[in-house]
Amino acid sequence: MTTVTLLHPGAMGASIGSALTQNGHTVLWVSKERSQTTKQRAADAGLEESEFRTALNRAEVVISVTPPGVAVSVAADVADEGFDGVYVDMNAVAPQSATQMAALFPQFVDGGIVGPPAWERGTTRLGLSGPRTAEVESLFAGSTIETIDLGPEIGKASAFKVSFAAWTKGSGALLLLVCAYARSQGVESELFQEWERRGMGMETKSTTVAQQMGPKSWRFGDEMREISDAVEAAGLGTGLFKHAGETFDRLAHLKNATDRPLTLEEVTRDLLDAPPAQ
Amino acid sequence: MTTVTLLHPGAMGASIGSALTQNGHTVLWVSKERSQTTKQRAADAGLEESEFRTALNRAEVVISVTPPGVAVSVAADVADEGFDGVYVDMNAVAPQSATQMAALFPQFVDGGIVGPPAWERGTTRLGLSGPRTAEVESLFAGSTIETIDLGPEIGKASAFKVSFAAWTKGSGALLLLVCAYARSQGVESELFQEWERRGMGMETKSTTVAQQMGPKSWRFGDEMREISDAVEAAGLGTGLFKHAGETFDRLAHLKNATDRPLTLEEVTRDLLDAPPAQ
Repeated sequence: MTTVTLLHPGAMGASIGSALTQNGHTVLWVSKERSQTTKQRAADAGLEESEFRTALNRAEVVISVTPPGVAVSVAADVADEGFDGVYVDMNAVAPQSATQMAALFPQFVDGGIVGPPAWERGTTRLGLSGPRTAEVESLFAGSTIETIDLGPEIGKASAFKVSFAAWTKGSGALLLLVCAYARSQGVESELFQEWERRGMGMETKSTTVAQQMGPKSWRFGDEMREISDAVEAAGLGTGLFKHAGETFDRLAHLKNATDRPLTLEEVTRDLLDAPPAQ
Repeated sequence: MTTVTLLHPGAMGASIGSALTQNGHTVLWVSKERSQTTKQRAADAGLEESEFRTALNRAEVVISVTPPGVAVSVAADVADEGFDGVYVDMNAVAPQSATQMAALFPQFVDGGIVGPPAWERGTTRLGLSGPRTAEVESLFAGSTIETIDLGPEIGKASAFKVSFAAWTKGSGALLLLVCAYARSQGVESELFQEWERRGMGMETKSTTVAQQMGPKSWRFGDEMREISDAVEAAGLGTGLFKHAGETFDRLAHLKNATDRPLTLEEVTRDLLDAPPAQ
């Protein structure tokens, strides 16, 4: 059995921690300055509260599950403490960011999670790449987290996640922009009628996107910028994902709007009312 | 019955000309420097060959159906001849471009076509806006072209078309970019498997987009830039549609690749091999 430190148990992280504790591993987390909600979530997942240095000293493996905008700084904080076990970055970052983090550690595994928090098997897959992939895979054997071995090269797991999110979230941003544009020009109902006539189902899809992505937009902006870096580095140009990121930035205030289903009207109005990006 | 000059009978224009001749109207077209294919297409649609000045002198209505990048210059050429009948721009341009063209004519109608060339009823709709909309609608009464009256304001018909094309073509560009990115990183098969597992049908969709949009990409670049202008003018930011336009520009050489169905592999390879935009 392995001792793992998990940074940090948000909704996704808690489900990953839970999969590990159910496999018999000890999972530590760092509770300093974390909310009561997070504490409860970690306790429910069977995680053990710890202090940062203690958690790193005890851990053979550190797993990072954070918003993409802080992935590199979390890795730097851990590296600064001289951590020499296996560091697994599971965040939605560009392969370039994964390579940058890999340089900080003697043992690094690149990870990318596709799907929702993994409370049941079949919903969520963890792509892994790097020379130590097999060790990380074995931690999750038989758990709710299905792993995919993407080979020994750092960056592949991030590229897999980038590819999947680029369509799912990129198309969500595009659809919200299109609906906001149509609304601004007074042709929204004509657009919806045209989609309906052609059986495209896009009005329903737009409403679903507004509901599901609205409250998560606060972290999609940074993810889109990682995707933008990845796509540009592949020689495919730039602009699309930055604009998608700015579109999500305009909805960041909906982070806590989870007490009711957001409407498409509300989300497109907020896109139109938001101040332009800096 | 009305005498109409149609500039110019491409695949879409010919179907519009045919709808008019079948309604008993006389439709002129300007054959100078046009290809044999275009001449045949115009003859099949029942259009009458003419010289530019003669066509404008005889016409009560001029209809422009051109690639979006030349819409404004075609309008300027007609205005320079002092045409004072009804000028109908049916091109995929930003509302701002429609307003700019409207200023050149005493009588202007804004139009936007949604759907393929209209050889049968039910596939294609023509949005119209401006004070003279009813006159243009009456030309097409009962024909294969269904009209939508979008009111007296110039720009609404263009906004309707922008909205529809922004999703259809924007999502096509996004999907091709995503597939090209995954290919460049060696994670294409893992991405396709993930889409398949989730029943998203995106590999099939990507192949369809490559086949259908590849040969039309040469004119989608300019259309995306019109959409970009429209979205930016609505205060919704910029970048997404410009990048989509550059993506289509990279495929412009596929204009004549209509002798065989294009493969997704071929199209993504061309995206990756293309020199970056200027």
